[in-house]
Amino acid sequence: MQKRVAVIGAGPSGLAQLRAFQSAAAKGANIPEIVCFEKQENWGGLWNYTWRTGLDEHGEPVHCSMYRYLWSNGPKEGLEFADYSFEEHFGKQIGSYPPRAVLFDYIEGRVKKAGVRDWIRFCTTVRFVRHDPATGKFTVTVHDLKNDTVYDEVFDHVIVASGHFSTPNVPEFPGFSTFGGRVLHAHDFRDAMEFKGKDILIVGTSYSAEDIGSQCWKYGANSITVAHRTAPMGFNWPSNWKEVPILERVDETTAYFKDGTSVKVNAIILCTGYKHHFPFLPDDLRLKTRNRLAAADLYKGVAWVKNPALFYLGMQDQWFTFNMFDAQAWWVRDVIMGRIAIPADEATRAKDVADRVAAEDAGQDAHDAIHYQGDYVKELIAETDYPSFDVDGACEAFFAWKEHKKKGIMTFRDNAYASVITGSMAPLHHTPWKDALEDSMESYLRN
Amino acid sequence: MQKRVAVIGAGPSGLAQLRAFQSAAAKGANIPEIVCFEKQENWGGLWNYTWRTGLDEHGEPVHCSMYRYLWSNGPKEGLEFADYSFEEHFGKQIGSYPPRAVLFDYIEGRVKKAGVRDWIRFCTTVRFVRHDPATGKFTVTVHDLKNDTVYDEVFDHVIVASGHFSTPNVPEFPGFSTFGGRVLHAHDFRDAMEFKGKDILIVGTSYSAEDIGSQCWKYGANSITVAHRTAPMGFNWPSNWKEVPILERVDETTAYFKDGTSVKVNAIILCTGYKHHFPFLPDDLRLKTRNRLAAADLYKGVAWVKNPALFYLGMQDQWFTFNMFDAQAWWVRDVIMGRIAIPADEATRAKDVADRVAAEDAGQDAHDAIHYQGDYVKELIAETDYPSFDVDGACEAFFAWKEHKKKGIMTFRDNAYASVITGSMAPLHHTPWKDALEDSMESYLRN
Repeated sequence: MQKRVAVIGAGPSGLAQLRAFQSAAAKGANIPEIVCFEKQENWGGLWNYTWRTGLDEHGEPVHCSMYRYLWSNGPKEGLEFADYSFEEHFGKQIGSYPPRAVLFDYIEGRVKKAGVRDWIRFCTTVRFVRHDPATGKFTVTVHDLKNDTVYDEVFDHVIVASGHFSTPNVPEFPGFSTFGGRVLHAHDFRDAMEFKGKDILIVGTSYSAEDIGSQCWKYGANSITVAHRTAPMGFNWPSNWKEVPILERVDETTAYFKDGTSVKVNAIILCTGYKHHFPFLPDDLRLKTRNRLAAADLYKGVAWVKNPALFYLGMQDQWFTFNMFDAQAWWVRDVIMGRIAIPADEATRAKDVADRVAAEDAGQDAHDAIHYQGDYVKELIAETDYPSFDVDGACEAFFAWKEHKKKGIMTFRDNAYASVITGSMAPLHHTPWKDALEDSMESYLRN
Repeated sequence: MQKRVAVIGAGPSGLAQLRAFQSAAAKGANIPEIVCFEKQENWGGLWNYTWRTGLDEHGEPVHCSMYRYLWSNGPKEGLEFADYSFEEHFGKQIGSYPPRAVLFDYIEGRVKKAGVRDWIRFCTTVRFVRHDPATGKFTVTVHDLKNDTVYDEVFDHVIVASGHFSTPNVPEFPGFSTFGGRVLHAHDFRDAMEFKGKDILIVGTSYSAEDIGSQCWKYGANSITVAHRTAPMGFNWPSNWKEVPILERVDETTAYFKDGTSVKVNAIILCTGYKHHFPFLPDDLRLKTRNRLAAADLYKGVAWVKNPALFYLGMQDQWFTFNMFDAQAWWVRDVIMGRIAIPADEATRAKDVADRVAAEDAGQDAHDAIHYQGDYVKELIAETDYPSFDVDGACEAFFAWKEHKKKGIMTFRDNAYASVITGSMAPLHHTPWKDALEDSMESYLRN
């Protein structure tokens, strides 16, 4: 009998999984029945922008963590699909740091071409998954949000591709209950125009802090103050931007920091990261991991050690993104199709995880981490028919990007890199990022 | 064997249920084992204020729809517990429109006295409920959020007391994706100070619109524009407040209405109501109803017609609140304890619902609706030992309140009414509502 596979989520990782199976079918293989459950009305995952925050039109948590004017914060040369280049999609080479809408279009282009939209049940959220040890099967309970009906289906495999940058980690600081301005998490940040002329406090120092602060600066915030827990980001910030030690408390109008300084602010944006959150999974199936390159309990970074009929995609912290999801999806496909064998004993699978953790921990810096994840991508693609590509070249793009950020945090996007898929050089964008207030696809492609 | 009863939610209706069982136990009855599952860290439901919006510290939807500076928008004389008066709690009579913190304290006072806190499992959200027709029992799957463990328990009865003013109904209007200010639902409104000096658009005309607009006005919004779908609220608004026809679209800065007028606004607050939302219930147990006085599919307004081992509390639209939840909770308790019989055949139960719907529909206006719900409360309390009280007197308080609102929408809270439980008159508050910017309990009780 034909196997049935449930894919949870139609974002970049879930779509990679659909494309992986479709590419096998296109080569004549017999593939399982694939059912992809997607909570949103459209595919694209985080790249599917909405103005909504909090709960969506169906009362479900909004998946989107993106905002208007978001441009890629890393070079597109590090994430290009090996089986579908930017040049193939756009008919020409494009700039290296595309705005969100451009990347959405690119992601969509590949799956439109693959013709897998019919495999997806949109507006359908997964309520619960159970595994029956007697049958080895999974019962997936889903809610069809449009028709407001709940139903069960049985699958041989479940692939969790629901992401881990959608459920905010929201700490409380003393005084938040009485602060007289907006307190929000980066997850709910949508439009920098709201903060024009305002004094903004950002808590945190990772990508959200860096990029949301930069957006607010670009669109006219009066001042940006960033509070760090351990160390400042240390870039060459503009003059109305400062980094301060950890936030201790706020009152109605003012934030107070550990070094005794304080600043009046109008809004507080918590850039304090995201949680791996799987409210639809019982204890025996639920991943609990720190956000790291060697995620806990996943053999080869994808197969659930305790029950390798269950897979997770993209649950690592990420330098590599789209192409790493591809590498994982092709590999998972081949396990499900019997082309790759997973060790039968749990101890061997657990040792694989322990080895990966040790290898990550042996790294000294970001440079090592990028190579570590590049090597992981190489390891997976070597075992499948995913098109081999110059992963080391992609690592070089990341190194160059980091140098460009050091040189100028508001100018790094004014650089261009060579594609590791086609070899061609990206054009320099027609307008410096800081002056390009319009972020439409039409505007960006005018080069 | 002792029956097991699951109560979902420890807000006003869930707490009424705990108090109902405890009061029977106090009179010497053998009561079932009660387990109350509460998602939040504390009891009080909507009255448990948090600065958080969207998702909470555990990644779960925030229950709170209340905001700073919220005062009761109806007289406390309409909601007083018949078994625990305001005078018993505060040691004196207090003003008629208490701020949130004062009402929270009152709600908490009764259940502290009852000693039922141990029946509640806090930070525990219900993931799913299933009914097994073979055993007649319910399996409730819950997530202990603090310990991050999921477990099942079996119950004879489930009482859904999770409220229906927590999941926002959020319509989209053309242009929301490109509006350059904050768009939020009333559910996420927290602090009127955020909108000081701002031009605010409110969409909707029900209680949230009226009260959030009034808060913004009181705390210094520059202007308030309220767009209605069918009819304006028609109160005597202040001069910087206007009512306009339905919103047609917005652009970056401006809202356009059906009558061709437009207004520049800084923020849009959607006061567009709430959904009955039960993501933890399958089709055979899930209530689907409009927000009305005669809710669908509930025998006597509480027992699930298709399976009367399942109950819902407080799912009606509400004039009466706390004391109606009490009337329902005492009645449900007596069904579970075998003191009241529910008709064995579904058709009879369904006819009860149809009759209630017809009776509600026969009413002409708000006056009729208030009496209709008052009569419902009387009907229920006549069948239990809940202390009888002057329900018609409470109706009179509602009628007086409506007159006072007509006279002055910014002054109606400066009135006082007589308790229908103790007969004593409430004092006039020491400061007119519009000048009382401080909403603490200490300040309010200084009378």
